[in-house]
Amino acid sequence: MRYFEDFSVGEVTEVGPVGVSEDEIVEFARRYDPQPFHVDPEAAKESPFGGLVASGWHTTALFMGMFVRRILLASASLGSPGVEEIRWTAPVRPGDTLTGRVTVTDVQPSSTNPRRGTVFTTNEVFNQNGELVMTLKARGFFARRPG
Amino acid sequence: MRYFEDFSVGEVTEVGPVGVSEDEIVEFARRYDPQPFHVDPEAAKESPFGGLVASGWHTTALFMGMFVRRILLASASLGSPGVEEIRWTAPVRPGDTLTGRVTVTDVQPSSTNPRRGTVFTTNEVFNQNGELVMTLKARGFFARRPG
Repeated sequence: MRYFEDFSVGEVTEVGPVGVSEDEIVEFARRYDPQPFHVDPEAAKESPFGGLVASGWHTTALFMGMFVRRILLASASLGSPGVEEIRWTAPVRPGDTLTGRVTVTDVQPSSTNPRRGTVFTTNEVFNQNGELVMTLKARGFFARRPG
Repeated sequence: MRYFEDFSVGEVTEVGPVGVSEDEIVEFARRYDPQPFHVDPEAAKESPFGGLVASGWHTTALFMGMFVRRILLASASLGSPGVEEIRWTAPVRPGDTLTGRVTVTDVQPSSTNPRRGTVFTTNEVFNQNGELVMTLKARGFFARRPG
């Protein structure tokens, strides 16, 4: 179990991989982002993307899945107050395989809660060609090591 | 059809509502954010949240669904390069009903692409008690009105 004290600045963790299918892209987007270039392969051909692409929110969710399974589930995670600066830098397309790289950029004990600290990360997501598809600066609360 | 020129600074649009069930919270989180307080009602009782809460990424997705259906589907949306500063300010719980408020904060014609402009928004999401559960600063590309 990793506590706040077990994260250190400069630490890099690779997460994933996760595959993304056309079915999943369309299923996610029908519910949460039903723009034509996310749900309709024919309409998507006429869009600036030239074909079906995943919702950016689907990409954030896929990254989160990798991050949770590799890091958070074995940690004393207490949730997150928010994130900064998401950039969708290249389209995610059906058949892509994504991986992520999590870099710890800062660690700060809470000034008000002695049992908690915040870990700041910069996160990058790449496709199978090594192309950067998303960046995201995040922060998470973690319990401090007991005793 | 709304083009870039049809958005003006200060414009406010209410979006939603959308309900969120325990089933949907758990289904989303099992795939994309399987932390105990998102997927396991019993474990969630022992968490800082005191019960099951939606993944923050689920809240962003639910907001996007409202935003797309109310605004983007009737617009010349060309996607988004990213967002700034998401804050999850209160938990979203099973049975909540969410609404959103979209405020246009800036409009900027592209300096490189005469057929496109960027619309900047500040977005707030509230629950059925009027409590603010999320804020999000976003930007989107829109086609300019032809001719």
